[in-house]
Amino acid sequence: MNVYGDLNSGNCYKIKLLAAILNIEIQWVDVDILAKETQTTEFLKKNPNGKIPLLELSEGLCISESNAILNYLAHNTALSSTDNYRHAKILQWQFFEQYSHEPYIAVARFIAKYLGLPPEREKEYKSKQIGGHKALTVMEQQLLHTPFLVGEQLTIADISLYGYTHVAHEGGFDLDDYPAIKKWIQRIKNHPRYVSMV
Amino acid sequence: MNVYGDLNSGNCYKIKLLAAILNIEIQWVDVDILAKETQTTEFLKKNPNGKIPLLELSEGLCISESNAILNYLAHNTALSSTDNYRHAKILQWQFFEQYSHEPYIAVARFIAKYLGLPPEREKEYKSKQIGGHKALTVMEQQLLHTPFLVGEQLTIADISLYGYTHVAHEGGFDLDDYPAIKKWIQRIKNHPRYVSMV
Repeated sequence: MNVYGDLNSGNCYKIKLLAAILNIEIQWVDVDILAKETQTTEFLKKNPNGKIPLLELSEGLCISESNAILNYLAHNTALSSTDNYRHAKILQWQFFEQYSHEPYIAVARFIAKYLGLPPEREKEYKSKQIGGHKALTVMEQQLLHTPFLVGEQLTIADISLYGYTHVAHEGGFDLDDYPAIKKWIQRIKNHPRYVSMV
Repeated sequence: MNVYGDLNSGNCYKIKLLAAILNIEIQWVDVDILAKETQTTEFLKKNPNGKIPLLELSEGLCISESNAILNYLAHNTALSSTDNYRHAKILQWQFFEQYSHEPYIAVARFIAKYLGLPPEREKEYKSKQIGGHKALTVMEQQLLHTPFLVGEQLTIADISLYGYTHVAHEGGFDLDDYPAIKKWIQRIKNHPRYVSMV
């Protein structure tokens, strides 16, 4: 099983963390986004949307979208659920992550950490703070009630949200205002099979 | 089963269309986003993220995020799949929809149709065209090979993408450049249980 990715990307790190927790062996293929390696003819054949991470099961059998990959790998394990309502709640948090969290927190981090916060993107960076804090507030409210996002147990919903939340400070988000999120981060870090991002 | 929504929203229409195809009875509760009805204390108790559509199964048992709701309702029907790879491909298209399609096509439509394309949002509107055409190109490539996004059969992946694609012209996207998408739209419209958006 090959995974094409860049471990500085939270979306790719999600796969690395899940694979470690589930003890799944994956072959990592480094891809440099900034060098446009996701836009080559060969890569676009594997993923026409030109994005990483990408899971390649065999020639021509690929799955893209980090959260779809997590669902595939966690199928029939304790990190997913066969209960319809519970699985829908996992998906709810994963769609929340891609629509209401990643576009703010990951993008702010990218502008600050990788681009060095250039003046022409400062306005965009600031606007990302509002949406990012809104997403963190939604998470905080849930984590004040339950140790993990979908209840008592760690699921792939937590893996999805952990990816960029635990490095949110690199995008200018001070997590001191979110004590439940900080405890949840520590809870995940304490997992015996935890691996760090880089 | 209550669904809180606004039928002018493609995200809400997805639920209406799936419910019609599966013959599921839902009680529609109209919510006016522009009047901030998703930001009331009562609504935020049901969905702390303040968004529609929202499925309420019973007091306190809610699912948000349109694509999570589709997965919940289509569970164990022909519109989803119990095969792990096939289900991951359905999810792949749904995550693609929320990250690479909706933020361009739905937002361009919102700016044009609901805000009347005000001068201060013209630059944003134009920038949305690029991402929107990229998403349509990815769909076109798939639909040149298979009648539906995940193969021979209609799935909730198609319902998800259909929501905003079939009204993409209202966001300035001319679908004449995408003949396979146009045929796919017609294929869905021909479903015996098809219902239109409004």
